[in-house]
Amino acid sequence: MQHKQVFQQLTEFWNSGMPFNQLLGFKITEFDQDKAEIRFDWQDKLIGNPTQKILHGGVTAAALDLAGGVVAAANIIAQLEDLSPETVEKSIKKLSTIDLRTDYLRPGRGEEFIATAVVIRSGSKVAVTRMELHNEKGEHIAFGTATYMVG
Amino acid sequence: MQHKQVFQQLTEFWNSGMPFNQLLGFKITEFDQDKAEIRFDWQDKLIGNPTQKILHGGVTAAALDLAGGVVAAANIIAQLEDLSPETVEKSIKKLSTIDLRTDYLRPGRGEEFIATAVVIRSGSKVAVTRMELHNEKGEHIAFGTATYMVG
Amino acid sequence: MQHKQVFQQLTEFWNSGMPFNQLLGFKITEFDQDKAEIRFDWQDKLIGNPTQKILHGGVTAAALDLAGGVVAAANIIAQLEDLSPETVEKSIKKLSTIDLRTDYLRPGRGEEFIATAVVIRSGSKVAVTRMELHNEKGEHIAFGTATYMVG
Amino acid sequence: MQHKQVFQQLTEFWNSGMPFNQLLGFKITEFDQDKAEIRFDWQDKLIGNPTQKILHGGVTAAALDLAGGVVAAANIIAQLEDLSPETVEKSIKKLSTIDLRTDYLRPGRGEEFIATAVVIRSGSKVAVTRMELHNEKGEHIAFGTATYMVG
Repeated sequence: MQHKQVFQQLTEFWNSGMPFNQLLGFKITEFDQDKAEIRFDWQDKLIGNPTQKILHGGVTAAALDLAGGVVAAANIIAQLEDLSPETVEKSIKKLSTIDLRTDYLRPGRGEEFIATAVVIRSGSKVAVTRMELHNEKGEHIAFGTATYMVG
Repeated sequence: MQHKQVFQQLTEFWNSGMPFNQLLGFKITEFDQDKAEIRFDWQDKLIGNPTQKILHGGVTAAALDLAGGVVAAANIIAQLEDLSPETVEKSIKKLSTIDLRTDYLRPGRGEEFIATAVVIRSGSKVAVTRMELHNEKGEHIAFGTATYMVG
Repeated sequence: MQHKQVFQQLTEFWNSGMPFNQLLGFKITEFDQDKAEIRFDWQDKLIGNPTQKILHGGVTAAALDLAGGVVAAANIIAQLEDLSPETVEKSIKKLSTIDLRTDYLRPGRGEEFIATAVVIRSGSKVAVTRMELHNEKGEHIAFGTATYMVG
Repeated sequence: MQHKQVFQQLTEFWNSGMPFNQLLGFKITEFDQDKAEIRFDWQDKLIGNPTQKILHGGVTAAALDLAGGVVAAANIIAQLEDLSPETVEKSIKKLSTIDLRTDYLRPGRGEEFIATAVVIRSGSKVAVTRMELHNEKGEHIAFGTATYMVG
């Protein structure tokens, strides 16, 4: 099996099997070691402040954390020689968020939101990622930085 | 009207009128200038990783952001002399999260979760808060720090 | 007087009149609203760990804070219509760091170090900046994010 | 050799052998796994802004990073059974700062400054610490949070 196939399988599994991501409508649309991408549509249930109709800050943080986690996962898998399901599962289980920082730049308004992530530090124990959230017009809503345990 | 009454009214309004908080089951249980508290019960839909049955990191971030926002709001209101609904609403509208940092200490397991927040820097323009998330056993799950625009 | 002249004057003043920056050998080499740049040479006194001969983490943080502060200052000044020394001084006095985050990517080795900063959120009260530290070979040593009070 | 003896030796070594800490006048005054403490006196060379006579933000960040690093080091050593100089040195060499966040609460004024640190997450690979900076009057100047690679 190739790495790309593993990425594809994990995308399907995570898109269909992670309750909170489904609740929020998050879809992984890119799962690679260079970049991860998450997309989700506006839904009224994602509103934080009802008088302003903007995304709850927690939705933004959740989307950035998922995007960062996906690109960190891809970096773990890319370092594996054995791509058996057991090895992949065991490696992915070690993935956890150590810290996550979100910088809110603009109110979260839009019809569709796109979170992207890249790895800025990759190691056998810890990975650091940077994320961005834009809406469908390309307006930049938030920046994120996260540190993940990966080994 | 007294400040306490305003806090009580905002608690009721925010508990019943903020869609994302209702979706996640967040309840404001303390709204004061010294401290804010949010409580929520475990629900399967809050799961991040289905193989581990732990809270999604975004749920933790959302709870910490709400707790910090409540104590920051209480600090805005405490500085108001005029407590008319118009003044309160106008003041609260200025509240927005500038940045939020979450440090994940332990897996988010438990039956009930309690997020608390205190203000560590209070000003006319910016407030900084510190938050903690514990479960019903008192296990410390996460720390948070947030900066809010308040004026 | 033009904005560029004010930037030039502040560069000279800050390069010659800020004790800690002089102690560390920091030089402002670009002071503009699009971008700020700080340069400094390796000196043994900047060593953190003597067995490894790498920059102390505090040196990196200080350089990033200065670069972010300069670009934030340029954004304050760019919004001024009155560029009299009194107005500029009064405006600059409001500038202070609210929070600063540094992500260390690689050991701080090199002969010369270059810190750059851009503004990612600009407002009348708060500015948010992103910074990077590279060495003379272009190796990326650190990322930074900072929030400044500007009004 | 006991752990306490190792802590004492490292205190002496770090207080006399780390150039940047000496330049700034930092002294480790407590080196334990429960808590670390750093003290330093006001010196004009630590001034950031000459018109305000307050500590440069980089000095605060450096003091917090040192305090966090010391308590993280104590936690590494506390987990060692073999306390031979080679093992201690090898273990301490793995210590490096992954990220450091500083929240500036008040202007850095005072005659003496005290930075303290505690560990909030301790593991075999990563440790997270929280730090505070006070002056001699007990005024709280800054908060910090840092993540360290420890294994």
